[in-house]
Amino acid sequence: MTYCVGIRLERGIIFLSDTRTNAGVDHVNRYRKMMVWETPGDRVMVMLVSGNLAVTQAVVNSLQEAIKLGKQGGKVKNLLNAPNMFAAASLVGDAVRQVYDRDAEALKKHNLEFTASIIFGGQIRGEEPRLFNVYTAGNFIEASLGTPYLQIGESKYGKPILDRMITYQTPLEEAVKCALVSMDSTIRSNLSVGAPLDLLSYTTDSFKIGYQVRLDKDDAYLSMIHSRWGEQLRKAFEELPNPNWQDSGSQNIE
Amino acid sequence: MTYCVGIRLERGIIFLSDTRTNAGVDHVNRYRKMMVWETPGDRVMVMLVSGNLAVTQAVVNSLQEAIKLGKQGGKVKNLLNAPNMFAAASLVGDAVRQVYDRDAEALKKHNLEFTASIIFGGQIRGEEPRLFNVYTAGNFIEASLGTPYLQIGESKYGKPILDRMITYQTPLEEAVKCALVSMDSTIRSNLSVGAPLDLLSYTTDSFKIGYQVRLDKDDAYLSMIHSRWGEQLRKAFEELPNPNWQDSGSQNIE
Repeated sequence: MTYCVGIRLERGIIFLSDTRTNAGVDHVNRYRKMMVWETPGDRVMVMLVSGNLAVTQAVVNSLQEAIKLGKQGGKVKNLLNAPNMFAAASLVGDAVRQVYDRDAEALKKHNLEFTASIIFGGQIRGEEPRLFNVYTAGNFIEASLGTPYLQIGESKYGKPILDRMITYQTPLEEAVKCALVSMDSTIRSNLSVGAPLDLLSYTTDSFKIGYQVRLDKDDAYLSMIHSRWGEQLRKAFEELPNPNWQDSGSQNIE
Repeated sequence: MTYCVGIRLERGIIFLSDTRTNAGVDHVNRYRKMMVWETPGDRVMVMLVSGNLAVTQAVVNSLQEAIKLGKQGGKVKNLLNAPNMFAAASLVGDAVRQVYDRDAEALKKHNLEFTASIIFGGQIRGEEPRLFNVYTAGNFIEASLGTPYLQIGESKYGKPILDRMITYQTPLEEAVKCALVSMDSTIRSNLSVGAPLDLLSYTTDSFKIGYQVRLDKDDAYLSMIHSRWGEQLRKAFEELPNPNWQDSGSQNIE
């Protein structure tokens, strides 16, 4: 499993991914799920992947090949020459479809599902930052003012806190904190999501990566979130008054 | 969808269920998902159901029929004469299997899934209170000291708060509060779970229902939970320090 979240805010975009992959519970590995393309001054693009690891690796490989061909002078559409983020997201979708055409039939023979869910976002000079979720079918949706974040993988445990805290106006540092609380809740409830984490912050109109850090399980800030958030929740919970329904047996209901 | 939770504590058992059912988003109804059997002084049994509504209604009907036959003098094993809770849970499992034998084939023809997940618990004089989760296959597991609660239906949104707050020693009122916070988070994130709620509290060794109440959306305590918990969470979140990673561009990772 996987948990990744991207948050598109007025002041930039936050990307966070875990690194745990598993095939069954007895085959657990660590893979990077965050890919970054940067041409300082012109564009930054970040991709977070979940789904079948062979599929998403093939997608990344296909995108990299196109960039390589482009650099060698070939007239190949690729992420570094895409005119805008929508066109770039289309290239990601096309790559998923290519891999599907090659592998889906063979996977089916082994009762394996072809799955890929991708968060892809960034900014290309000439337009606003944008954030997309590219689906297995290669189609995609874009984050909006009303729903500024996108999740892939094991999304439910970490969704309530995002729902309550994130708006388009949330400052970047607060969004990072929220993403990490969301990740912490997910890690706590699902063994197949785990540290280290990859975190990237992009500031609107900077056209370069703000910071990109890998957080180990014992990273000071991550540990603080892990222990303090539990305490804070307990305190918040204890401050809610208890109910006081009195024992009165059953009532006729319905 | 559905969300139900049962919490087995030292001092009793708490049962909570929503009442929303849906077949697609354009066919939403209200059904009671909590069934209660009580012989004051001898036994209290409570059942919460999720899954295919036709299946779970047939299960309840089958259990009621056996009780009726028993009352008419037939020598029929039923919930009111089961010698202990394990035997009673077996009767629930048997009822699921009966319905499966009758309906599963026909459902399959229409590509409909046969699903039933049931929380069943209570106390019969002569043993401790017990709480079970009966699966679609008619087999079941029992809540334990380490995992004192059981959930069925849309369980993920409401699980983190239970994980953090509930132990076997939690007082009943606090467990009710926690179950309602868990339900509130679920209702907030999943449209197919909704009020009114059915809540039942059973106190160990009382052999009668403590209280059973139906909470409408505008019930005072439920509304308090709904508004105050959001505020409390926000306060807790704001008290966590923000991170302060500095913009430093990308680092070579892996």
